[in-house]
Amino acid sequence: MSAPKPETFRETDDEARTLARTLIAEARFGALGILLDGAPFVTRVALAPEDGVLTTLVSDLAPHTAALRATPDASLLIGEPGKGDPLAHPRLTLQVRARFVEKSEEAIRAYLEKQPKAQLYIGFADFHLVSLEPVDLWLNGGFGKAYRLVPDDLRAGSA
Amino acid sequence: MSAPKPETFRETDDEARTLARTLIAEARFGALGILLDGAPFVTRVALAPEDGVLTTLVSDLAPHTAALRATPDASLLIGEPGKGDPLAHPRLTLQVRARFVEKSEEAIRAYLEKQPKAQLYIGFADFHLVSLEPVDLWLNGGFGKAYRLVPDDLRAGSA
Repeated sequence: MSAPKPETFRETDDEARTLARTLIAEARFGALGILLDGAPFVTRVALAPEDGVLTTLVSDLAPHTAALRATPDASLLIGEPGKGDPLAHPRLTLQVRARFVEKSEEAIRAYLEKQPKAQLYIGFADFHLVSLEPVDLWLNGGFGKAYRLVPDDLRAGSA
Repeated sequence: MSAPKPETFRETDDEARTLARTLIAEARFGALGILLDGAPFVTRVALAPEDGVLTTLVSDLAPHTAALRATPDASLLIGEPGKGDPLAHPRLTLQVRARFVEKSEEAIRAYLEKQPKAQLYIGFADFHLVSLEPVDLWLNGGFGKAYRLVPDDLRAGSA
């Protein structure tokens, strides 16, 4: 399946960049799409954002963990609807590349800053920190407000 | 990627069936996983559940619409985290088969009962009703509470 025609996207402006950055900075969970037996599969993940990269903590028991090791290209939806029409609320799909990172003291501390409850299990050997680095971003700010963004748009001060 | 070992799942009981049915009955939105250019892609969809089947309303402008026409096998995550650890809250991944359904008066009325704000655009020719029929269900009721369910488990009175 190909992407929809480019003319359905607005030109990226500072408002769109700020909205994308805000959605990422405020994300504490998301919906992760991976491939399971060749089919799309969506699971809940907890998130700790830092400088535009989202880190998650995954267990060997979760279906997405082995899937990310085999195929690091994944998709992440963030931005939760409030009341009223769910489609009127901003959301961001990030096409990401997953990278298993060392559970260094610094990485653990940074994760727990955003996800303090994970203190209970982050030390277990079957839990792994995975950074999800954005490759391509699809922002939907509500009806008629669709944008395609690139990772550079997430840098503060980018224009 | 294969599914995790069966012993990581609990035996399905009435509590699990009731939780799955409740998550579906209360869902007003979800995260839909489809294939876009061969990669997983997750988008926000609005949902109207009825008798264990979830109906959504999709626009020709959304990337998932053409994807579902090409490959009707999709994945849907429902169940929103509350406060605290996002992984402590119940969620359900439904592997679904998408079917574009006629926008009959009855189908429109049933959808609007759950999504009244869609009245503004459900009549537009480029919006389509799609039923998402569960094929396979992965329930996670929180840590250590993983179940695999089958569509029959969603029937009231099933045991």
